[in-house]
Amino acid sequence: MRAVDLIIRKRDGAELAPEEIDFLVRGFTAGDIPDYQFSSLLMAIVLKGMTPGETARLTRAMIESGDVLDLAGVPGPLVDKHSTGGVGDKISLILAPLAAACGLRVPMMSGRSLGHTGGTLDKLESIPGYRTDLSVERFRTALEKVGFAMIGQSESVVPADRRMYALRDVTGTVESIPLITASIMSKKFAEGAQALLMDVKTGSGAFMKDRSQARSLAQSLVVTGAGLGRKVAALITDMDQPLGLAIGNFLEVRECVECLQGRGPKDEVDLTVCQAGWMLTLGGLAKTPREGEALARQRLGDGSAWERFLQNVQFQGGDTEVLLHPDRGPRASVARTLKAHSGGFVKRIDAYKAGVASVILGAGRSRKEDRVLPGVGITLSRTQGDRVDPGDELCVLHGENDQSVSEACLLMEAAYSLSEQQVMPGPRLLEEITGP
Amino acid sequence: MRAVDLIIRKRDGAELAPEEIDFLVRGFTAGDIPDYQFSSLLMAIVLKGMTPGETARLTRAMIESGDVLDLAGVPGPLVDKHSTGGVGDKISLILAPLAAACGLRVPMMSGRSLGHTGGTLDKLESIPGYRTDLSVERFRTALEKVGFAMIGQSESVVPADRRMYALRDVTGTVESIPLITASIMSKKFAEGAQALLMDVKTGSGAFMKDRSQARSLAQSLVVTGAGLGRKVAALITDMDQPLGLAIGNFLEVRECVECLQGRGPKDEVDLTVCQAGWMLTLGGLAKTPREGEALARQRLGDGSAWERFLQNVQFQGGDTEVLLHPDRGPRASVARTLKAHSGGFVKRIDAYKAGVASVILGAGRSRKEDRVLPGVGITLSRTQGDRVDPGDELCVLHGENDQSVSEACLLMEAAYSLSEQQVMPGPRLLEEITGP
Repeated sequence: MRAVDLIIRKRDGAELAPEEIDFLVRGFTAGDIPDYQFSSLLMAIVLKGMTPGETARLTRAMIESGDVLDLAGVPGPLVDKHSTGGVGDKISLILAPLAAACGLRVPMMSGRSLGHTGGTLDKLESIPGYRTDLSVERFRTALEKVGFAMIGQSESVVPADRRMYALRDVTGTVESIPLITASIMSKKFAEGAQALLMDVKTGSGAFMKDRSQARSLAQSLVVTGAGLGRKVAALITDMDQPLGLAIGNFLEVRECVECLQGRGPKDEVDLTVCQAGWMLTLGGLAKTPREGEALARQRLGDGSAWERFLQNVQFQGGDTEVLLHPDRGPRASVARTLKAHSGGFVKRIDAYKAGVASVILGAGRSRKEDRVLPGVGITLSRTQGDRVDPGDELCVLHGENDQSVSEACLLMEAAYSLSEQQVMPGPRLLEEITGP
Repeated sequence: MRAVDLIIRKRDGAELAPEEIDFLVRGFTAGDIPDYQFSSLLMAIVLKGMTPGETARLTRAMIESGDVLDLAGVPGPLVDKHSTGGVGDKISLILAPLAAACGLRVPMMSGRSLGHTGGTLDKLESIPGYRTDLSVERFRTALEKVGFAMIGQSESVVPADRRMYALRDVTGTVESIPLITASIMSKKFAEGAQALLMDVKTGSGAFMKDRSQARSLAQSLVVTGAGLGRKVAALITDMDQPLGLAIGNFLEVRECVECLQGRGPKDEVDLTVCQAGWMLTLGGLAKTPREGEALARQRLGDGSAWERFLQNVQFQGGDTEVLLHPDRGPRASVARTLKAHSGGFVKRIDAYKAGVASVILGAGRSRKEDRVLPGVGITLSRTQGDRVDPGDELCVLHGENDQSVSEACLLMEAAYSLSEQQVMPGPRLLEEITGP
């Protein structure tokens, strides 16, 4: 078998055989197939696509490129959630303890901020002392004792994905539904999850700006999950506007604490409870998502989810004091309020612009090497549908220097659009996609 | 400007701006843009194409990547011919001296055998002593004194093409009309030609097996030539069957000598004269190709083309004795005759199979590192339309060992197909394509 012949076949639109896909992934991971051949293959895949069978095989080959976490013996259904990423999307931090409080085990392997979107690991690490590099044994123990654990991708799990992603990033081959599917699914199933809920974001603040693209990805994820013998459901949710009121690492942690204490923004709490309902259904602990939601809302109300979160932070080395007294947590040195010039109703806050503003403040990364600042970000004082009078506070920008705050302020001014007519906030949940 | 952004634009079907194409070619040639990015770009070009404007600019950028031969001051119109390659296609060796004898100057830069097709340089080098690595000064002198010269591509001319071709070869990105166009045209115009006749081969023995592909390439070459301000015409000619009777380096040289002495196979002589007519027209020495053909046929008949060939071989260090007495030239040690099992008329000799058979005998290369054998090859005793009785000689295989001869013999048996009905040989010239 020669790599060049397989590249040519894919270029000409043929379906690659399972052993051909295995050969390519193995060869690339081992370094036998050079980057310049693999990038040409990746471009052919971007432009010619992959069948569901090819995508499932690619996912499997990627899983087999490294270690698979052995979670056999961990009691209870192992269910994870993954979001394609958004602005202010802090749901994982609320959802994982909530699902655990409802009886699921959540082995969550997360990523870092990317482009204009935030990353779960960066948010967690804004809690002083919090470690995301648990050993496999500690990860197991956390799942058994606390019911969930939050870790980063280790070097030995799905090495093919790490190599492929680094190459895709610089060769214009990121935007491909089969490649995105295989990247997400390989990581999720290598970490030991039995079932998976996908939150596919769409809108200006999402990677899939277009609803039909988001739907294609959601369908691909569900079908590929079925091809691998796992239960996968996908929700398409709105990311045209930031989720909740806080954007930026520790600012988001604070908001999570509020949610877990029953005081969170409605859009965020509702979407979290909805996702918990789906996870419980996938894990067999609820007959329907609605039944699951009812249980989740109960556990959020009785404080047991909040308790789980504190247990997790303690287990993973984090300082629970800053959760109990958020004012003692990291804070930015500069705060500036953006005020409304005119009156009306908030028609929209452009999530993409808000995301870029938060990166400018230091909450995310422009380059991989950048360090994120824990205390910076944006808190929204007015969101979609809110009435605004001239001079009212729209949002507060938290930064480490005047220049970045001024830049971010201009962007937030552009992100807000007002209307004279009254505006109803749109729904967050747009579509539910389940397997065959 | 970042390479990845340009790759993404090409992937999404956009037209690249002239300065973007310059940036990519310069960066790749200098090694600033790594192979893995360039191969991904190449695949995007293969699948998304290039406009005529982009192709012309790519050609120009490739020319500018290295030295351009300065032939200013060489008297007479500088016109070259290039063939896309075939089996038994030895026309260059007859055409260059013929065109020179008619008053043109032919600065010919040629390639080596590739896949199942032969290469002009390999044919010339089967003449003992013949050197194709002339200095620029010697090249000029040859053009002035003999009227033509035949050289290989030097390291310093179009280095971008050499790098690009090496990468295309292993990344499944050879088959692209804009990339083929730019590769051919950049070399031809960097060598100093003012006008160019393209012989675009089609049929089983050609790279463009399909007539409509050949037409697209021919049109692209003509349009790109116009975009660069050069006169280019293209002929689409049949390569479904080998040209002439000899396949293999010195066997073909012998046949060229016969053609130059007025004793060559009709298909070969006719096509050579036709191409000479076109070259004379492009160079302004004839009003029409037909008028040019008449002059060429005269020069072929009066021995002046043959004289030019001898002068060239002498100038380039070759042993003219083997041309005057071909039996003293290189010969293979084994010769085997393939005989007909049944009778009828030769319907077709599959050029691709014949080409592969000649490579097996050692006339071409399976890998770049292979050395070609000067004396081996195939001589056809019967060609399309010939009557055959059982036991008649079909062809003779010349090789260096029994095993390769046996293998080649089986292939030639498969290459011949006979018919009970009488068969008329098809025309070699299929279409003439000229600029706007």
